[in-house]
Amino acid sequence: MTAEAVVAELAQKARKAGRTLSTSTSAERKAALEFIAQAIESSSAEILTANERDMASARRENMHPQMQDRLLLTPERIAGIASGARQVAALNDPLGRTLRESVLPNGLELKQISVPFGVIGMVYEARPNVTVDAAVILLASGNAALLRGSSTAHHSNEIFVNVMKKALEKTNISPEVIQLVPSADRATTKALLTARGLVDLVIPRGSAALIRMVVDEATVPTIETGAGVCHVYIDEFADIAKALPILINSKTHRPSVCNAAETLLVHKSVAPTFLPMALKALKDAGVILHSDATAQKVAEKFTIESTLATESNWSTEYGILEMNVAVVDSLDAAIDHIAQYGTKHTEAIVTENKENAARFIALSDCAAVMVNTSTRFTDGEQMGFGAEIGISNQKLHARGPMGLEAMTTTTWIVTGDGQIRS
Amino acid sequence: MTAEAVVAELAQKARKAGRTLSTSTSAERKAALEFIAQAIESSSAEILTANERDMASARRENMHPQMQDRLLLTPERIAGIASGARQVAALNDPLGRTLRESVLPNGLELKQISVPFGVIGMVYEARPNVTVDAAVILLASGNAALLRGSSTAHHSNEIFVNVMKKALEKTNISPEVIQLVPSADRATTKALLTARGLVDLVIPRGSAALIRMVVDEATVPTIETGAGVCHVYIDEFADIAKALPILINSKTHRPSVCNAAETLLVHKSVAPTFLPMALKALKDAGVILHSDATAQKVAEKFTIESTLATESNWSTEYGILEMNVAVVDSLDAAIDHIAQYGTKHTEAIVTENKENAARFIALSDCAAVMVNTSTRFTDGEQMGFGAEIGISNQKLHARGPMGLEAMTTTTWIVTGDGQIRS
Repeated sequence: MTAEAVVAELAQKARKAGRTLSTSTSAERKAALEFIAQAIESSSAEILTANERDMASARRENMHPQMQDRLLLTPERIAGIASGARQVAALNDPLGRTLRESVLPNGLELKQISVPFGVIGMVYEARPNVTVDAAVILLASGNAALLRGSSTAHHSNEIFVNVMKKALEKTNISPEVIQLVPSADRATTKALLTARGLVDLVIPRGSAALIRMVVDEATVPTIETGAGVCHVYIDEFADIAKALPILINSKTHRPSVCNAAETLLVHKSVAPTFLPMALKALKDAGVILHSDATAQKVAEKFTIESTLATESNWSTEYGILEMNVAVVDSLDAAIDHIAQYGTKHTEAIVTENKENAARFIALSDCAAVMVNTSTRFTDGEQMGFGAEIGISNQKLHARGPMGLEAMTTTTWIVTGDGQIRS
Repeated sequence: MTAEAVVAELAQKARKAGRTLSTSTSAERKAALEFIAQAIESSSAEILTANERDMASARRENMHPQMQDRLLLTPERIAGIASGARQVAALNDPLGRTLRESVLPNGLELKQISVPFGVIGMVYEARPNVTVDAAVILLASGNAALLRGSSTAHHSNEIFVNVMKKALEKTNISPEVIQLVPSADRATTKALLTARGLVDLVIPRGSAALIRMVVDEATVPTIETGAGVCHVYIDEFADIAKALPILINSKTHRPSVCNAAETLLVHKSVAPTFLPMALKALKDAGVILHSDATAQKVAEKFTIESTLATESNWSTEYGILEMNVAVVDSLDAAIDHIAQYGTKHTEAIVTENKENAARFIALSDCAAVMVNTSTRFTDGEQMGFGAEIGISNQKLHARGPMGLEAMTTTTWIVTGDGQIRS
């Protein structure tokens, strides 16, 4: 069978099974998630065995230690995954919400309600927890799931899917709503991305390269996640006492994630006071610095190690302790810089001036604007969503952290008593 | 200059100018629309002259009379276009709405507000009114517009854009927020569809072929509009007195539009009574019939002209007085038919049984479900949106008729007092 045929068959199975989800009650979906949590807990030993097979291959192939750590499951991590399923079960049901409602002059009753997408594909890398996290969020939002993980996590993904399917056998929801897409061959990813009419939405989760590939290949609708070249702008009206901790937290708290900052922009009028202490604090925190000409002079004056930033530095998402620094002439110049190099993820301004904050909000063109706080707060859990399937970096459908509601679409229901158009 | 360079330049101009829109007030946008309406009214003579040039070419090239009619402008139509702009000005401002709001335990204030997309491209066919209708809706929702109309309407589009730009000179909004994309060369459409990072969204409006081309070519986000293979399902619990007018209205009221019905599905238990009268009424209304084997027998018995439907009939959007008829064994069989041949636009059920209506709603997987009413009500104006830029046929972002709110996206604003993540 070709990859297209394999994916088509899985998608059709998932869609048909999805009818049992579309007609399920909120209580049934919540019970299914509890069964899944229990099944994961009671299958911990088998899950660890399967994961050890993936880990053994990873060690044999000298996988990067950081990636090995992402692949690794432990009893504690498995317990955490099960408890994640319970947390999702405890969230408000995102389906059947009435979003708009009216009665037309001709007596027609108009209602816009939230409904599932149908079949959602996830494309992700070697993190087996995503298999459960994604399946659980999609189930809770009434969607059938086509899970295309990494071949390096194959055994872990397979056991998780089998355990979840077995748990669904206890419910009225067909176990076929969860499908693992074979990962041995890269062609299945392409097939998933071009399965128009069979797959309603694909969400890639992973590296910038993965997401770029998805955007290039996809003919089904997609939601891009993740890429984050985030800026911290210190305005001329900044409270410097706030600015320094915000900067350090934004860059160093967890540099590997998308909401970490990559570039510091400083208004020229506060640069003389702020830059020396900022550069020193970053350096003390172990941050490698790339500065524009003005900032570089400050660094040299205070003998703080820094290199002159190159064009490519400004658009790099480092993911490690490395940061760009530039001095700007005005708030609008900061906006220009962000427009040129940003990825429309999160932008922070530190200012005590409300008009400047409003102008920054109006023009920074991103998923989340932080006013006097750290870029690290663009996060589903921090924002109180309870669970997050990813952070949308695009403007279509959902923007920013995506919880259960973002995994629903809408339908209009028009109820009449025989009305026709005249 | 290549088409890519032309489009890139226009998009950059539009984005830069868009800052004056992003920072404009609701009153300023409304005033701009009023100036546009006035300018169109006072330029009626020039607009007619330009349109006559397009019409002369159309006649020379023997354009289909129906298409000539779409291209034609008259004093009345121009007045209607101006009044459309005023209607949009009177609608609620879609920007700056607070969609979600909370205060986190650490004191951060969280707000999700509606904001413009930025730069939106429209790709449409030879209907010059779309040039103004689209520009006005995009302006009202804070978006800069790249308008790519048909070369056959070039002179009409050009004068409309010039008139609108001139009107904007009286405001603080830069006239460059409206850009006409050259239409002499098809390459500009392709360039618009692949201008990633420069264009935030493209909306195609027109034939199924145009929309298919957009989906295949686009790497920028798009919203598909329009294709409508809509069904009317007469349930076993239908009130036949309602069913007949709903059927005739759905098919014959305006067969050229996307919410017209193409296929009638009749439950087998009501077929013996309903089908003879339905086929006769359709025939009397001038409808060409294509029937499945069961319905064909009924047609033959009552000597009503009909041909046996072919596989391709079921998925054809006729746009004229032509209709498919099938008898189904159950509501779920009707759902199966719709899942196989429908375009997820509008599906109607005629039934007095609430459970069947609920099951049809849960499983018909479309933008709008009509319960005991005509498919023709899926329409922005009928639904009270006041203006409509198109009907979304996809699940991402917006579904069904799209008014001003659908032309906005969101951003999160997180306001703090120096909070950092611990």
